[in-house]
Amino acid sequence: MNIFLVGTGLIGGTLLDQINAQANIIHVIALANSEHTLFDDSRIDLTDWQSALEESTDDTDMAKFVSKMKSLNLKNSIFVDCTASEETQNYYEEILNAKISIVTPNKKANSSSFETYQMLKNTAAKNSVKFLYETNVGAGLPVISTLNDLVKTGDKIIKIEAVLSGTLSYIFNVFTDKMPFSTVVQQAQKKGYTEPDPRDDLNGVDVARKILILARESGLSMEIDAIEIENLVPEAGREANSVEQFFVELKKADDKFAAMQNQAKCNNKKLRYIAKLEKGLATVSLQAIDKNHPFYDLSGSDNIVSFTTKRYKETPLVIKGPGAGAEVTAAGVFADILRTI
Amino acid sequence: MNIFLVGTGLIGGTLLDQINAQANIIHVIALANSEHTLFDDSRIDLTDWQSALEESTDDTDMAKFVSKMKSLNLKNSIFVDCTASEETQNYYEEILNAKISIVTPNKKANSSSFETYQMLKNTAAKNSVKFLYETNVGAGLPVISTLNDLVKTGDKIIKIEAVLSGTLSYIFNVFTDKMPFSTVVQQAQKKGYTEPDPRDDLNGVDVARKILILARESGLSMEIDAIEIENLVPEAGREANSVEQFFVELKKADDKFAAMQNQAKCNNKKLRYIAKLEKGLATVSLQAIDKNHPFYDLSGSDNIVSFTTKRYKETPLVIKGPGAGAEVTAAGVFADILRTI
Repeated sequence: MNIFLVGTGLIGGTLLDQINAQANIIHVIALANSEHTLFDDSRIDLTDWQSALEESTDDTDMAKFVSKMKSLNLKNSIFVDCTASEETQNYYEEILNAKISIVTPNKKANSSSFETYQMLKNTAAKNSVKFLYETNVGAGLPVISTLNDLVKTGDKIIKIEAVLSGTLSYIFNVFTDKMPFSTVVQQAQKKGYTEPDPRDDLNGVDVARKILILARESGLSMEIDAIEIENLVPEAGREANSVEQFFVELKKADDKFAAMQNQAKCNNKKLRYIAKLEKGLATVSLQAIDKNHPFYDLSGSDNIVSFTTKRYKETPLVIKGPGAGAEVTAAGVFADILRTI
Repeated sequence: MNIFLVGTGLIGGTLLDQINAQANIIHVIALANSEHTLFDDSRIDLTDWQSALEESTDDTDMAKFVSKMKSLNLKNSIFVDCTASEETQNYYEEILNAKISIVTPNKKANSSSFETYQMLKNTAAKNSVKFLYETNVGAGLPVISTLNDLVKTGDKIIKIEAVLSGTLSYIFNVFTDKMPFSTVVQQAQKKGYTEPDPRDDLNGVDVARKILILARESGLSMEIDAIEIENLVPEAGREANSVEQFFVELKKADDKFAAMQNQAKCNNKKLRYIAKLEKGLATVSLQAIDKNHPFYDLSGSDNIVSFTTKRYKETPLVIKGPGAGAEVTAAGVFADILRTI
């Protein structure tokens, strides 16, 4: 297998270390970060890829990267997109048409228009190559592959319920009456558990993108606009120009969150930010659930996905575990790479 | 894909219905039950396979079946073993050497000697064909594929804990102080939830076979004798000549089981029959667990598997859901079939 990897940040870098420790059958032919690009068609030595990439005098240019990758015309080529960029997806169609498989944790393409999503799947099928993105949802947890198996074998999805944000899972696991909500978020941010701007977690868009992808994989031609999202960012904080200003506004909402938390506690309930797909409708909302609910006992930053289907009807098929983190996400990308052949 | 299916009982029959409802790319070329064999190299019409098979004048002979399958020499041939027989595995090596993939829910081969297990895996790899058996453990739940992904990407298995018998899961979910243990088992048997002879469930051997397969998939060269099994059949019942006689002996043990159940209840615990693999040792035993244990809230005949690994260390990767039943097992076999190409 010949890997062309863009994005050597936390996930991409961890992936390179995992490949180096494990798989001799995988040759990494090219690496690029936002600044440098390194090609070595005999294979890049992964024991010190950082220095080699840093010392490369090739500036990164995605068009050139793709063109060079295509011209090498190597068997079993795989383009691995570990960037968080919107730009890379513009090349996916061209790459698939060059009979190069794509593996990516980047969910921008699959959560853009349904037309793009479907076009990419069709283009991959037409060229007999793979377009794999298990880590778009639940990091390394086997969520999308399990859903694919259900659908391909003729099962019918009745309901999907899920906690899909490790960050929000963590925040609502930590949030009790002992600490204001804004402080919980601030501490999570300091620990690096949130995006640099925590609004990118709290606005629910990332969770909506994930349930959108699960809806599409279930066979629905859904767009992101169709999803009802409960935005946890107070209205005044949405337009705030800085993260600091946002926290000022979030503090003002502490009483509101405390009231919700207190009410939940009085009823022996817990707050969970839950994505749901049922009868063609997707919603993302904060809910108070009681101890009979399977999501009650969630801990840490665990994700959980529950599939109720025609065949898994009495009790659902449930997958639970850490849904974020460089090691497990990189391992999920690695497993997808191994699945391309 | 060209399917050669032996064993048209509950699972095999359900699989044929699922294939008929779903996949035009799958051609069923041959069918056999214990009496009749039907070959049609243009493809068997699945709308009425029962009558066609019943009316076939070919008696089933595994050696002839395999020989005819080989001589047809069709591309993408897959041998599907839905029997519970020990005999079929004797042909697996020959079949794989003929470059025919094998998919099976039958765990006899993988739980026989380690030498056989390893030989079959090596033979499949040597011939670039697949030997897939996801449904050996947890029926359609993605247990073996998930474990394979962890191992192949370089994760290290620290601990596997699991409830792997739908029957025993059901029995201990139903068993309270309201009914003697022997009555619970008897009712489960009448509902068809146990093997015809419930000792085949209660002796723990089936669960041991499953944890043995997970141990081997984790990289251990383990034999079944190495597993410490708590046999739930009272000693006097093991040698009983009939199921009726066994129930007489089981009734004598009702007080013992009631005492265990009472003690568990007093401590707010529940009884679970748990398979465990840790530090190279596998055990299968009845345990009283408290409500902090992730297996406490198991319901119905659910299976659950918890993987603690180097990467899934803080909280484990957990898969839960129905681990038995014709529909979900057949769907798991179907998914394996689709994975052979």
